[in-house]
Amino acid sequence: MPSPVSGFSKKTKEEKIDWLLAQYLQEVPNAKETLSQYWNTDASLQALHDDFIENTITNYYLPLGIAPNFLINDRLFAIPMVIEESSVVAAASNAAKFWMERGGFKTKVISTQKNGQVYLNFFGKKESLTTFFTEIKPKLVESIEQVQKNMTKRGGGLIAIELKDCTEALGGFYQLHCTFETLDAMGANFINSCLETIATTFKNEAKAHQSFGQTHQYPEVVMSILSNFVPECLVRAEVSCHVSELEQNDIDGTDFAKKIVRSVAIAHAEPRRAVTHNKGIMNGIDAVILATGNDFRAVEAGVHAYASKNGQYKSLTHASLENDIFSFWIEIPLALGTVGGLTTLHPLVKIALEILQKPTAKELMQIVAAAGLAQNFAALRSLVTVGIQKGHMKMHLMNILNSLEASPSEKDKAVIHFDKNAVSHTAVATYLTHLRS
Amino acid sequence: MPSPVSGFSKKTKEEKIDWLLAQYLQEVPNAKETLSQYWNTDASLQALHDDFIENTITNYYLPLGIAPNFLINDRLFAIPMVIEESSVVAAASNAAKFWMERGGFKTKVISTQKNGQVYLNFFGKKESLTTFFTEIKPKLVESIEQVQKNMTKRGGGLIAIELKDCTEALGGFYQLHCTFETLDAMGANFINSCLETIATTFKNEAKAHQSFGQTHQYPEVVMSILSNFVPECLVRAEVSCHVSELEQNDIDGTDFAKKIVRSVAIAHAEPRRAVTHNKGIMNGIDAVILATGNDFRAVEAGVHAYASKNGQYKSLTHASLENDIFSFWIEIPLALGTVGGLTTLHPLVKIALEILQKPTAKELMQIVAAAGLAQNFAALRSLVTVGIQKGHMKMHLMNILNSLEASPSEKDKAVIHFDKNAVSHTAVATYLTHLRS
Repeated sequence: MPSPVSGFSKKTKEEKIDWLLAQYLQEVPNAKETLSQYWNTDASLQALHDDFIENTITNYYLPLGIAPNFLINDRLFAIPMVIEESSVVAAASNAAKFWMERGGFKTKVISTQKNGQVYLNFFGKKESLTTFFTEIKPKLVESIEQVQKNMTKRGGGLIAIELKDCTEALGGFYQLHCTFETLDAMGANFINSCLETIATTFKNEAKAHQSFGQTHQYPEVVMSILSNFVPECLVRAEVSCHVSELEQNDIDGTDFAKKIVRSVAIAHAEPRRAVTHNKGIMNGIDAVILATGNDFRAVEAGVHAYASKNGQYKSLTHASLENDIFSFWIEIPLALGTVGGLTTLHPLVKIALEILQKPTAKELMQIVAAAGLAQNFAALRSLVTVGIQKGHMKMHLMNILNSLEASPSEKDKAVIHFDKNAVSHTAVATYLTHLRS
Repeated sequence: MPSPVSGFSKKTKEEKIDWLLAQYLQEVPNAKETLSQYWNTDASLQALHDDFIENTITNYYLPLGIAPNFLINDRLFAIPMVIEESSVVAAASNAAKFWMERGGFKTKVISTQKNGQVYLNFFGKKESLTTFFTEIKPKLVESIEQVQKNMTKRGGGLIAIELKDCTEALGGFYQLHCTFETLDAMGANFINSCLETIATTFKNEAKAHQSFGQTHQYPEVVMSILSNFVPECLVRAEVSCHVSELEQNDIDGTDFAKKIVRSVAIAHAEPRRAVTHNKGIMNGIDAVILATGNDFRAVEAGVHAYASKNGQYKSLTHASLENDIFSFWIEIPLALGTVGGLTTLHPLVKIALEILQKPTAKELMQIVAAAGLAQNFAALRSLVTVGIQKGHMKMHLMNILNSLEASPSEKDKAVIHFDKNAVSHTAVATYLTHLRS
């Protein structure tokens, strides 16, 4: 049985690893070698990565791949994608090329507003709170002047503060709903710092305010934090073409368009399908989010909550076929940053942003939306034609071969063999046994 | 203006990078050096990672940290976490230690069923379809005998197939709803292979079936795919203690418990808060999902859809204070694997699973749920006491110092200075300028 540990964070990296080895990895030969094999040979680069988080023992590798040929508003991009799942980059590349030849992606930013809240308890008369809020509102704004000085200089900052009565949802529950423009920053730290300052001012003013003193019922700050639900920070991406341009191999263009439209309709009607449909979209989105040093948990939470905003969880993409024009589009909330956070720290994030031609946050929103739409198109195209497994298992073949330790020449033979045969772990294992006998 | 590219996937890694440099990175000195600096010096290990996905050009580093002292059902774990966000691992470690001293996490798996669907169009009489389905159901099951041979041998496989009439949601929409037990595999490939085989059998049988021949209205397969919505694959984790045990520094135990309960109630009442509340939970969950080679997009989609299952997006955690007992728990759907996929391929995933003492999928579900609950507890604890920024910015200090290229001695001085002063990018920059002058 392993023992509890005190002061783990104070140990050096080597001491942490030695503790782990002694407690949990005694029977794993080469564990130490494996962990250190992933360290960078450049000590100062490694030290930089060690400092990103706490208790770092090594670097976890995720492959960084490139999906070229993304034509977005007539500019051609190669999109860096970080993801562990095979076939995502291939699917994005295929969809990008397909639409590059049909006019590309048309994207636009609809809105860029972020939001955060100071959550309050108040069990007195609503009028006292309303009067107090109206009176001190200028002081609340004034109190963050220093915090938002740099942001306002660049044209951003607090947009509005509003007192919301939420007592119908929960007794005594009010909030200060604050909206912000954070420009090229994702803005989490900025918003939280503003909110905490506003909360402190609010508390101090309430203590001194006579209307509460009379009844001894003071408003109380529960907590202050930004929201990752950002339906006022929206981007749209669309592809469209005449059905005649959709003819592929043995599939008629109109038939193909109808199949896609139907598959999207199903993802609007059936939540079990919608969840997987949107998961596929997020394969593309998260891969760019990771490559550009953004926070995929924030994006995931905001996007999935948006998918359920009308009470039933639904598809994030839409498709139509009207007058022989096929259109396919996505509208999603994305709060992204291209300055601050990891963007200035992680050397590969810097390169990823250079590959994307140093986008502003608005430009990055559009690139990410296009990547999500492309991913969904590729998935639906497979699903309504040959099925998802054919392409996926082909892509996965190399992973299976590696797990069975196939040699380079065995791999070459296997690729040829499985071009015409169904891939499964068992089938590949059987084939290799046969080859080796 | 960059040019389109053909046959990009066929280029070697070096050729891909050269193409990128010529097209997008002409003005970025050292881009090639930076990309190759992240390659592993062991060529065969690098080749393994290159093969995970398509068009790989380098390894993206995410730090792998360790959160020790997780007492889960009386077993002590050190949890490997892969995440780029500072303060997540520190928060998990703090919460783990806190609850280790108060009985630890109690967890249990509620259910383990996965599901997938064959989506159908059918515009004929419902009775014809029902009769047909009842008649061919044994053939559908029989047709996947080979595909599920290994899975059934181990006790898993198809549990049931059901025909569902969804025509109220969408005209002509039916589905074959299939449920599966996939044991220690996440099961995506297995389920998709089963579904596609079932779909093929269904199509062939329908073609030959007389009841459709009479009217020429055949059921049509739209697509076949697993669902990432897995509310029948549920796990629960809980912590609880007497309020007297919650006394900390200058906070009374009952007051603290009430604050946590209230903050959870707010996350049930206000979706904007719920999204951020759950995002924090996912910080902990995804970090373990990544470290153990699971698919975080699948988990995110399933979990957030579950949060909105009753029509309003809500908190995934719950808290109560009854008879001086504080309880705090989470119930979430998690479809995870500890065999197959990356788990057998990525050397660091293998080590992560060894650190977790080779968990079964059910054990991993419980560890992940505990990590999510710990993360939420830590976040709420900060939010309702000192605020989120104090701890977060302390943790983020090192990143800011690195972005300003502080020397080791400057870092040491800054850590002491900012122990008593508020951290912000501007404050740190000003402090360094002062130090350097």
